[in-house]
Amino acid sequence: MRIEDLNWMDVEEYLKHDDRLILVIGACEQHGHLSLLTDIKIPLALADAASHRTGVLVAPPLNFGSSPYFLTYPGTLSLRLSTLMDAVEDIVRSAYGQGFKRMLFLNGHGGNSGVKARLTELANELAGLSIQWYAWWMSHSVEAVAIRHDIKPSHANWLEAFPFTIVGELPEEDKVPPHVPSEVMDAKTTRSVYGDGSFGGRYRVEEGIMQEVFDAALQDILQLLKFE
Amino acid sequence: MRIEDLNWMDVEEYLKHDDRLILVIGACEQHGHLSLLTDIKIPLALADAASHRTGVLVAPPLNFGSSPYFLTYPGTLSLRLSTLMDAVEDIVRSAYGQGFKRMLFLNGHGGNSGVKARLTELANELAGLSIQWYAWWMSHSVEAVAIRHDIKPSHANWLEAFPFTIVGELPEEDKVPPHVPSEVMDAKTTRSVYGDGSFGGRYRVEEGIMQEVFDAALQDILQLLKFE
Amino acid sequence: MRIEDLNWMDVEEYLKHDDRLILVIGACEQHGHLSLLTDIKIPLALADAASHRTGVLVAPPLNFGSSPYFLTYPGTLSLRLSTLMDAVEDIVRSAYGQGFKRMLFLNGHGGNSGVKARLTELANELAGLSIQWYAWWMSHSVEAVAIRHDIKPSHANWLEAFPFTIVGELPEEDKVPPHVPSEVMDAKTTRSVYGDGSFGGRYRVEEGIMQEVFDAALQDILQLLKFE
Amino acid sequence: MRIEDLNWMDVEEYLKHDDRLILVIGACEQHGHLSLLTDIKIPLALADAASHRTGVLVAPPLNFGSSPYFLTYPGTLSLRLSTLMDAVEDIVRSAYGQGFKRMLFLNGHGGNSGVKARLTELANELAGLSIQWYAWWMSHSVEAVAIRHDIKPSHANWLEAFPFTIVGELPEEDKVPPHVPSEVMDAKTTRSVYGDGSFGGRYRVEEGIMQEVFDAALQDILQLLKFE
Amino acid sequence: MRIEDLNWMDVEEYLKHDDRLILVIGACEQHGHLSLLTDIKIPLALADAASHRTGVLVAPPLNFGSSPYFLTYPGTLSLRLSTLMDAVEDIVRSAYGQGFKRMLFLNGHGGNSGVKARLTELANELAGLSIQWYAWWMSHSVEAVAIRHDIKPSHANWLEAFPFTIVGELPEEDKVPPHVPSEVMDAKTTRSVYGDGSFGGRYRVEEGIMQEVFDAALQDILQLLKFE
Amino acid sequence: MRIEDLNWMDVEEYLKHDDRLILVIGACEQHGHLSLLTDIKIPLALADAASHRTGVLVAPPLNFGSSPYFLTYPGTLSLRLSTLMDAVEDIVRSAYGQGFKRMLFLNGHGGNSGVKARLTELANELAGLSIQWYAWWMSHSVEAVAIRHDIKPSHANWLEAFPFTIVGELPEEDKVPPHVPSEVMDAKTTRSVYGDGSFGGRYRVEEGIMQEVFDAALQDILQLLKFE
Repeated sequence: MRIEDLNWMDVEEYLKHDDRLILVIGACEQHGHLSLLTDIKIPLALADAASHRTGVLVAPPLNFGSSPYFLTYPGTLSLRLSTLMDAVEDIVRSAYGQGFKRMLFLNGHGGNSGVKARLTELANELAGLSIQWYAWWMSHSVEAVAIRHDIKPSHANWLEAFPFTIVGELPEEDKVPPHVPSEVMDAKTTRSVYGDGSFGGRYRVEEGIMQEVFDAALQDILQLLKFE
Repeated sequence: MRIEDLNWMDVEEYLKHDDRLILVIGACEQHGHLSLLTDIKIPLALADAASHRTGVLVAPPLNFGSSPYFLTYPGTLSLRLSTLMDAVEDIVRSAYGQGFKRMLFLNGHGGNSGVKARLTELANELAGLSIQWYAWWMSHSVEAVAIRHDIKPSHANWLEAFPFTIVGELPEEDKVPPHVPSEVMDAKTTRSVYGDGSFGGRYRVEEGIMQEVFDAALQDILQLLKFE
Repeated sequence: MRIEDLNWMDVEEYLKHDDRLILVIGACEQHGHLSLLTDIKIPLALADAASHRTGVLVAPPLNFGSSPYFLTYPGTLSLRLSTLMDAVEDIVRSAYGQGFKRMLFLNGHGGNSGVKARLTELANELAGLSIQWYAWWMSHSVEAVAIRHDIKPSHANWLEAFPFTIVGELPEEDKVPPHVPSEVMDAKTTRSVYGDGSFGGRYRVEEGIMQEVFDAALQDILQLLKFE
Repeated sequence: MRIEDLNWMDVEEYLKHDDRLILVIGACEQHGHLSLLTDIKIPLALADAASHRTGVLVAPPLNFGSSPYFLTYPGTLSLRLSTLMDAVEDIVRSAYGQGFKRMLFLNGHGGNSGVKARLTELANELAGLSIQWYAWWMSHSVEAVAIRHDIKPSHANWLEAFPFTIVGELPEEDKVPPHVPSEVMDAKTTRSVYGDGSFGGRYRVEEGIMQEVFDAALQDILQLLKFE
Repeated sequence: MRIEDLNWMDVEEYLKHDDRLILVIGACEQHGHLSLLTDIKIPLALADAASHRTGVLVAPPLNFGSSPYFLTYPGTLSLRLSTLMDAVEDIVRSAYGQGFKRMLFLNGHGGNSGVKARLTELANELAGLSIQWYAWWMSHSVEAVAIRHDIKPSHANWLEAFPFTIVGELPEEDKVPPHVPSEVMDAKTTRSVYGDGSFGGRYRVEEGIMQEVFDAALQDILQLLKFE
Repeated sequence: MRIEDLNWMDVEEYLKHDDRLILVIGACEQHGHLSLLTDIKIPLALADAASHRTGVLVAPPLNFGSSPYFLTYPGTLSLRLSTLMDAVEDIVRSAYGQGFKRMLFLNGHGGNSGVKARLTELANELAGLSIQWYAWWMSHSVEAVAIRHDIKPSHANWLEAFPFTIVGELPEEDKVPPHVPSEVMDAKTTRSVYGDGSFGGRYRVEEGIMQEVFDAALQDILQLLKFE
């Protein structure tokens, strides 16, 4: 159940019996051969699935995240981290003022983790606000799937190659992970290091594994939605 | 052609022969009986149609706008105007740095017009940047349709009741436009003034008229995409 | 009665029986052949006239507005819209803290309308604050005068040519309104489009019409000062 | 010669032979029994006098400064220091972009001195920009007048009681300067310390002395306008 | 060699043959039984050791980081993340303008990682700037020491209990790591979860292990200072 | 007693019987032949001495201040004034939230005085917060020492040449104070004016005088710590 499919009376009705909200953040950035909106598509798909099972409301995704290092890859549209934090703050305050008290952030992008600082600052101020944060690709559950199949997860490799993020042909051969000279690189250096944008490894695995990944993340989310 | 259906190589290819980009902004706010995302759905549909005919690329929509006056209507998720301006600035700078030089903003929401000030500030700074701004409901073309059929266009009335923004039943009877005591009202006053959120008039007209409205706006957009 | 002609004891006395304040905002920007401070002079004259009849206090004008498109015209001194919003916020908070609860903004400049968003945000926060906003040149009353005399009102044409804004000779011949290629133009383009800065039409009309315009706006203001 | 009495063509003409600009900043704040706009009126009178002798252009005054400590005195309308700095920055950038390269700030208010930091930051960035700053009441010249007549200058005492800042009766008896417990006090404490707002001493001296003060400051300004 | 032990002529001399700078950031926050400045003391000790061997200059530490979750523990003095990013930006710009082109950040605190986004934004803008970032406790080298001795590293447990961070008695018994209900918790919840502030495990190990940890990190740093 | 030598339990204990805190701010900037951290070292030494006698807690110093005019002197690491104000605000809010209600700022640097505006804004908001501010070199007590010995105090001359700020040889001969063309100069001009960075006069006096200076400032501080 997405907000976009409802009018405000529907949401008012919802708030009479529930105060949870799923918020999707991610990035519009290069993902190698995958969709530029991969980091939104994945958590949004998870949100939809979780909403389907629990009835928890899903807010429209914030389609842009913090990706300054990828700005040399065309199609990457990045917010300054400070802008992103402001936007998330405004959305949280809006929802909180209407009675949403438990919010689960499904984050699709590693560069957004600074947002947690702002959320903590808000949680200090807004009484009764409870926040969960889930970065699916960093979860133990997803890691376990990768370990079980002995394949290394990484940015824009098989890990993110879901049927709904694939927008064209994927290379057959594995990519050797490049040498990364620094944790903080400007966008020109980043592109010269990563070339096609994948961080290396296999580009694709069989769909069954992708389903395992998805299910593992979904189980985590269903658990988090209990806000225990 | 949306960015979300492409990878970065596709966009790099696109930039070899075109430097235009369509950007969709709007709001996640009460629209009476219509979808809370009405102000995104309409310009996005127009963007898709225009893209279909011209091949111009469409960026992911920025799903949140400036709607402080509607915050008492559940589901309204509003950015401060300053946050919205920052977000738009960041997106423009990202695209400009990659070679997009002509950008058309399709704005679906009246409260966003302050963004034009920031865009002008940016245009003063970024050499060769050319911007068009289109607020479909304020265009002479759309106004002409309304006059032709002698129906008054307004927020959350028939004007925005497209098949793709209707999410439930619409009232049969017209609404008498309420007395509006001030141009600047807090959200509590606004709700007490507007009740169901529509600004009044008919809630719905036959689909043929909606198609006329859509086509009128689309023709304007196709013209603006020439950047003459 | 202007604040500048009073000391703080006078204002404290005033607040015992009234809580209204008139705030004048506008711009220091090119107005063709008219004064660079036209957008302040007009609302300030209206404020003085309204104050004369009602005794409502007038704050010192904020002499600078948001005019990024005119920065190529010497003498245009523009604030970023974000700065303008901050300044207005600070002034409102100052007055509110001292007991002013009803504030009428007389705005002389179209580029300032983004300020309304900030004022709404403030009205959401500050209990009991009531705001009115008046942009004289956009009022139905003033429009009616123009229609009655069949002359088209526009930036820096006859509409703003009051005795107190005229600082030199005005052209005799009408100006043909130029073709305006976009709603968002950088300052260089703007100057090449508008030349002398007037948006076209007659440069001047007889004083009687100007008096009608002034009176029409004044009546509106007197009405708004009732805060009904 | 004030900008408000000119149109943009006049300023363009001016810039062909001069690149100096006088900028007036101050405060709208309690000044005991004197005008709430005292801190603008004095530097503006000095600016007019200096302009009269040198032909240097005077920008409209920024009527609000940083006076958080006086907010308990009705009529004090204060900007946060950060807002004030932003406003001054925007004005300087506007003027600089049009060819003004030498700017003299006539500051009427002690609380504004933080602005100098921002001006220095700007001077580091804007090549060829030359700035002078004059706080008349802190000058050796004005101090010398006070010493010569053996009267102690202070906020809202005789020092600021010019014919054009007096708006009512002034007390006959001197005020004993109060004990000031701290350099940083909230507005409530400040009012309890200062009572009527004057910092103490004589409320008024003969006009001849005021003329001496004015002339002393004016001579300084004429010297600074040489930008040597 | 610390900047505080030099005057500017010394630094000018240094810049003739080297352009590297070590910058220390961390936090002033609860560290259980350890010093409130633990997150500065450790990277500063590492910086001194690395400087001793390489002669690279060390800037004064920025003694405050982003620790909103610990604000209920007295002595925690936290910056908003946005403030921290601004401060780091200003310091980087200052140094860059003087000829420092290679900067190594030694970060002592996990909550500061959002700073990397700002650094990337700066690296995109400042040509020739090269940045390294090192969070000692997250390095593979330090992890290897922990694994070798089979002890789990965590906030405010043995991992940070260096002779120079111990300010009093340490508990003898291990602490059972508490259940952590969310990745984003307000400061009240955080304190109720963590009690004494340690994240659990052993409070102290023999000094030899601490020396191994220190040496492992130091070797990493010496490597990073090559900026390869 | 410095915070860095305590853990949070110690501070919690302290707060049971005292609510005072000493905060040290200054600058990392050129001081002629003296340490680049002179403006921190002096107030920190005073803080330690005052703490020794009173037991009042000392926070870690904020090692960077606002010094835009000295950025051409290598080793000067300056914050924008707005950043500095934000940082001080965050620290004050952190401490206030934990029960510190009386804060004494020991400021070592003239360029930081704009911070007082922000502190006043905070004092208006935070009930019960009491602030003292001390700029040792501007005190009457220190001035009296200089007058008694007939030596003129100035930036980076003898006045700041304490044993703990001297990092090398000091010139024997006095420096003639240079002509200073403006109160607001960019960093290039500033360096061309001041050369070695001292503002002129004697570079050094006998240690006994320095002890007098220190003691005079210390007595002031002990008085201020009574918060009367």
